[in-house]
Amino acid sequence: MSEFDFIKRYFAKQSIWRDDVILGSGDDCAVLQPPANQQLVTTIDALVAGVHFPHTTSPQDIGYKSIAVSLSDIAAMGAQPAWVVATLAMPTADETWVSAFADGFFELLNQHGVALVGGDLVQGPLAISTQLTGFVAPNQALLRRGAKPGDLLMVTGTLGDAGLALHQLQQHQPVCETLLHRLNRPTPRLDIGAALVGIASSAIDLSDGLLADCQHLLSTDDLGAEIDCARLPLSEAYRQCVPEELAVSLALSAGDDYELCFTIPPSQLTYCQQLGATQIGEIVRQPGVRCYQGERLFEVKSHGYQHFS
Amino acid sequence: MSEFDFIKRYFAKQSIWRDDVILGSGDDCAVLQPPANQQLVTTIDALVAGVHFPHTTSPQDIGYKSIAVSLSDIAAMGAQPAWVVATLAMPTADETWVSAFADGFFELLNQHGVALVGGDLVQGPLAISTQLTGFVAPNQALLRRGAKPGDLLMVTGTLGDAGLALHQLQQHQPVCETLLHRLNRPTPRLDIGAALVGIASSAIDLSDGLLADCQHLLSTDDLGAEIDCARLPLSEAYRQCVPEELAVSLALSAGDDYELCFTIPPSQLTYCQQLGATQIGEIVRQPGVRCYQGERLFEVKSHGYQHFS
Repeated sequence: MSEFDFIKRYFAKQSIWRDDVILGSGDDCAVLQPPANQQLVTTIDALVAGVHFPHTTSPQDIGYKSIAVSLSDIAAMGAQPAWVVATLAMPTADETWVSAFADGFFELLNQHGVALVGGDLVQGPLAISTQLTGFVAPNQALLRRGAKPGDLLMVTGTLGDAGLALHQLQQHQPVCETLLHRLNRPTPRLDIGAALVGIASSAIDLSDGLLADCQHLLSTDDLGAEIDCARLPLSEAYRQCVPEELAVSLALSAGDDYELCFTIPPSQLTYCQQLGATQIGEIVRQPGVRCYQGERLFEVKSHGYQHFS
Repeated sequence: MSEFDFIKRYFAKQSIWRDDVILGSGDDCAVLQPPANQQLVTTIDALVAGVHFPHTTSPQDIGYKSIAVSLSDIAAMGAQPAWVVATLAMPTADETWVSAFADGFFELLNQHGVALVGGDLVQGPLAISTQLTGFVAPNQALLRRGAKPGDLLMVTGTLGDAGLALHQLQQHQPVCETLLHRLNRPTPRLDIGAALVGIASSAIDLSDGLLADCQHLLSTDDLGAEIDCARLPLSEAYRQCVPEELAVSLALSAGDDYELCFTIPPSQLTYCQQLGATQIGEIVRQPGVRCYQGERLFEVKSHGYQHFS
């Protein structure tokens, strides 16, 4: 048995067990029992060392984040995650590294009751692909399309924390621990996503930055969004650490937030505020995304970490 | 829109359409309708340039093979393929390369009625991860476990063709076109796999070589296999090109055949021969895999392309 085979077995053993997994890792395919009267949602994401995370990131954090980004996609659909398969390419079969990676990987999977049902561990430059499947009631999935003029534009959590941490790393500045945690260990908003089913008119998760991602909610050519910069939810750590000239633009444009951005009819505002979401703007009938500081249009200069995709 | 985004769109457009795809690529997740009264099978494979295929492989062939290896896993379960998601990491957003890759990728997907329902195209060293989902009747999937003493050991197609082509490439010898085609464009045995449901007692697809893979069919410690080297199915091209000292050992040990290896009760021999499969040996109650040339035990020296996993 090769070292890679050894690690594969060790990996599969750490998964939780679920009733709907008829056969897990170790055969040519897993065999799964889909739930009656539910639809499936599925997503796949690739993370490449040096592109999607700095080479200095710890294996625990890489493991954690590889699951977090895919869970965030499931959250954006309002679905319940169930099964994951993954590929891990690594330069050498380093058991210590994989053990630490698995700590972060399974921490988040186990917390959300997701079973690892297959994978492929291969030699190659460090990269992870994670495919997650979840369940949602028929035709209840939250989609990117559906926003209407007059809908309110909402976000969960706070914006720009991850982007600021990355900016500090890239500038070789001291990095605030709270912000670094937000970069390496984003929290997928599964509970809020599920609570928005039947409520939100559209939803997306924020991976490329608010301005880029909220464009995807403008599904017809006549729709636009107006954002009030004063309403952007910023964390205490962010406010303390961010250079003044970057405060608004990083929050608007930096990636890796993994918060949900969604639209609701005004009647749902109180409900969504009670979920912890913040209204940052409104959907309008004039195309484009405009950000206001008071009466003044805010011009965004892009900052932060620009990954390819 | 970045070049990567452009290519993503172009890619998604080439997929076939299926009734059970409620929402395809372009949202945070795809939404899929699983069939009633069926189980799902799922597999994921990673292919890394220089590890799983030579750097000289054409993009068409890389696209084709990335689908073939996963379809082969679906075939080994006796299942029907339905949906695929994939990640493609490439150094630069090279539209010409991706267009050729897509030709091979969709050729095999479309031939088998499989829809691409999501993906992630990122910057990074060339690598592809392919996740396929298929359907199978409840508790009818072919598994690796289940072989019994007295069962016959069977394979589809011919063995060693891909391994010989790779050997020729690695030795900088002229490569026989027929063999190279078998290396770059393996045929997933979906029809035969489906025809073995309820017939075969165990099954696996051959990716790491017959000897390595057929070990996985010996699911209890007291089981063994005896292989008659004279029965190994070899192609005409293989017989003509292979150096005599490698003829048997390459057929036994070289990877990348993507044929099915399976076991049946003797009563099913004629049926399976009519499917095009060949009996190469038998399952016995003595542990280990033994290969015979006449009465003489054949000692295998490993040749061919050894990838990590």
